[in-house]
Amino acid sequence: MINIILCGGSGTRLWPLSRELFPKQFIKLFNGQSLFQETLQRNKGICEQFIIVSNKEQHFLALDQLEKLQVGSTRFILESAARNTAPAIALACLAVDPDEIVLVTPSDHLITETEEYKESVKQAEGLARDGYLVTFGIKPTHAETGYGYIQSDGYDVISFKEKPDLETAKQYISDGRFFWNSGMFVFRAGTFLRELETVAVNVYEATSNAFQSSDGMDPILIGRREMESIPSISVDYAVMEKSKKVKVIPSQFGWSDLGSFDAVYNEFDKDEHGNTLNENYINVDSGKNLIISDRTVATVDIEDLIIVDTDDALLITKKGSSMKVKEVVNQLNEINSSLTNVHVTTYRPWGSYTLLEESGGYKIRRTIVKPGCKLTMQKHYHRNEHWIVLSGTAKVTLGDREVIIRPNESTYIPISELHRLENPGKIDLVLIEVQTGEYLSEDDIVRVGDLRDK
Amino acid sequence: MINIILCGGSGTRLWPLSRELFPKQFIKLFNGQSLFQETLQRNKGICEQFIIVSNKEQHFLALDQLEKLQVGSTRFILESAARNTAPAIALACLAVDPDEIVLVTPSDHLITETEEYKESVKQAEGLARDGYLVTFGIKPTHAETGYGYIQSDGYDVISFKEKPDLETAKQYISDGRFFWNSGMFVFRAGTFLRELETVAVNVYEATSNAFQSSDGMDPILIGRREMESIPSISVDYAVMEKSKKVKVIPSQFGWSDLGSFDAVYNEFDKDEHGNTLNENYINVDSGKNLIISDRTVATVDIEDLIIVDTDDALLITKKGSSMKVKEVVNQLNEINSSLTNVHVTTYRPWGSYTLLEESGGYKIRRTIVKPGCKLTMQKHYHRNEHWIVLSGTAKVTLGDREVIIRPNESTYIPISELHRLENPGKIDLVLIEVQTGEYLSEDDIVRVGDLRDK
Repeated sequence: MINIILCGGSGTRLWPLSRELFPKQFIKLFNGQSLFQETLQRNKGICEQFIIVSNKEQHFLALDQLEKLQVGSTRFILESAARNTAPAIALACLAVDPDEIVLVTPSDHLITETEEYKESVKQAEGLARDGYLVTFGIKPTHAETGYGYIQSDGYDVISFKEKPDLETAKQYISDGRFFWNSGMFVFRAGTFLRELETVAVNVYEATSNAFQSSDGMDPILIGRREMESIPSISVDYAVMEKSKKVKVIPSQFGWSDLGSFDAVYNEFDKDEHGNTLNENYINVDSGKNLIISDRTVATVDIEDLIIVDTDDALLITKKGSSMKVKEVVNQLNEINSSLTNVHVTTYRPWGSYTLLEESGGYKIRRTIVKPGCKLTMQKHYHRNEHWIVLSGTAKVTLGDREVIIRPNESTYIPISELHRLENPGKIDLVLIEVQTGEYLSEDDIVRVGDLRDK
Repeated sequence: MINIILCGGSGTRLWPLSRELFPKQFIKLFNGQSLFQETLQRNKGICEQFIIVSNKEQHFLALDQLEKLQVGSTRFILESAARNTAPAIALACLAVDPDEIVLVTPSDHLITETEEYKESVKQAEGLARDGYLVTFGIKPTHAETGYGYIQSDGYDVISFKEKPDLETAKQYISDGRFFWNSGMFVFRAGTFLRELETVAVNVYEATSNAFQSSDGMDPILIGRREMESIPSISVDYAVMEKSKKVKVIPSQFGWSDLGSFDAVYNEFDKDEHGNTLNENYINVDSGKNLIISDRTVATVDIEDLIIVDTDDALLITKKGSSMKVKEVVNQLNEINSSLTNVHVTTYRPWGSYTLLEESGGYKIRRTIVKPGCKLTMQKHYHRNEHWIVLSGTAKVTLGDREVIIRPNESTYIPISELHRLENPGKIDLVLIEVQTGEYLSEDDIVRVGDLRDK
């Protein structure tokens, strides 16, 4: 079986933990592992191959997180623009043999009961071999209004239901034939593509054309124009709600889509007062709070609050209202805030940089370059840079010279001097960069040479 | 008239804005001015001289904040240990001519109606000339349980009342003869000392002895042993509640002791939703919140919350519960947290340093040295230091050499090299210091030479 992993996301619902360039699946929420990593580890017992459909900008993040996992063969399909799940799944199906059975999973969901999960997947696989599009219906534990529902009769689907209001959700629960739509599927790649062609021919054709435009080399990169020619549509709307070949496996494997901080609260370990565990938390008469912070947080007489504290932004919402976090993100986007886009740490293919301090006339960053990586040759017209190596070894090109800088050594790059930073070693290179000058924005950079290194 | 300014405080009630070494009066809460500065500016129209009674550790903070105010003559009495208000006032009275009229004011209260205030002080001055100890009774605006009350009949005091419960406070309000005890006084220095001798002879004698032990030079420094020999007692308990010479001026001048964040909320300007004004605030359906932060704060469906965000600690309390902040401070003290003691910025007589980042094997600080100031000659056995000057000019002594370092220049101080930093110029010297080594605590320092420079 091949696991198609949908690895997109806009970083909205768990803001400020998630950002546009660092969506939910990459956050290390549980046990120092990201949901993306947990998805791969869970499925590597079931699947031998992985096809990861991701945003182009997140490719290297996914690669970084893959590094230590030792999963089998992985291939990437990189979308230059997001078009929702139907095109993403179709692109992946086009990349494999039509007879292959594929397990389609999001990368940002939680599953706590792995054995039950594997059992359900095995059942689904049987039906998929018989030519069905198989989906998983999660037995609801409460009247959730944040999920779509599948009404079923045994393995047969009666109908798909959109997110209900609370009254309707309660009726669904008492009825007993309604299941949460988990967004996971098992089918033959060819079955899916034929059904897509039957019920949504325009999506099928646009996706096929886009796929054929790529060179087929890994990673398969689909250009912006090609992506934008595909209708943006979910697999439920495009295929599942219309196809006659859909079956559902009623399942119970501790599933959550963690689609809001309320859902996250339910899954975190808690102390005797119902507060999530936090090393630096000072509690005075407070209970039932979600607290995420690396700093010291003190609460007095606080109940049912969601407190999410990151280096550059603080979110406080009433429990039960965390669905409205998207309104915060909308407001930030209206004022063009970069807070929706990136964290203080920005990840690049060669490593990362973290803004430590910015003030009149200077900026301090911690830069990490991965072993064997280098940045482009570059120069700046408005800033000088002082670099101090903390660990690892830096090879620095300064004009015509090449110097090696060891831990506790420093170098200086004056305005307009061409320079290049490289980590020739075997461990991370960590350096502190103090920039001084009248203008310190990222766009004061002239790159020279091979831009693909940057 | 001489203004005696009581400038102590433990930094507890407005934690994390206030800290033990940075108490409430020094926080710039309103219009970029501290309450200490506002106290001086308010009183400089009434008094020609100021005697500031302060903790020894806060002397230079007070001097810093005095610098730009252009008030008249100021003298300092520095206590090496805090003994509450009666000894502080007595020490100041011992330092002036017994016939002098003194106005005793805390340094951390708010007064919004300056003209009414001056009018009340003028009335008080008249009674003080007639030999009375005059206090100010503030006409209550609400049934406050956080203040003591004075029951009066015209200018005559019937009794002093401790902080009442809510029921009692309501009775006081409807009665009409009860006033808030503001902790401000006017009297002849000699009158106060004679009354103290009459009603609390042990306090008087211990204070007199302590005062005589000092050399009388400004600043008058009272040693720890001498301070600790004085009973710790408030002026109300020691004198006002016992003396027969007390008069009260019923007053209305927009007074608040800002003794809790609830009181601070009442005094801050607010937007149309009742949230305090904050540049970086994103509001989704929230109202009536106190928000203090330099970062972006977003709230969703939040009402009546106090949110105080500083660089190293976050406090969230329900409005009405901010009196319990002291329990947070107690818990932090139990675990020996430095968060009750200092901010990320530590103020020293020569300037300040701010911890920007600390991680395995390195520490980054921004250091500011005031014009004409220098640090002690020193060396470290476990850390190297890289200094990069951002603005101003540094004179650095390195062993036998002396070098001048200009903006955008750097220097390096290896382990065990004797060095000294000095600002010989006319503007602040600002530098970034990157420390590397196995052990980076402040106590890895060997000072050489004149310790009074440090």
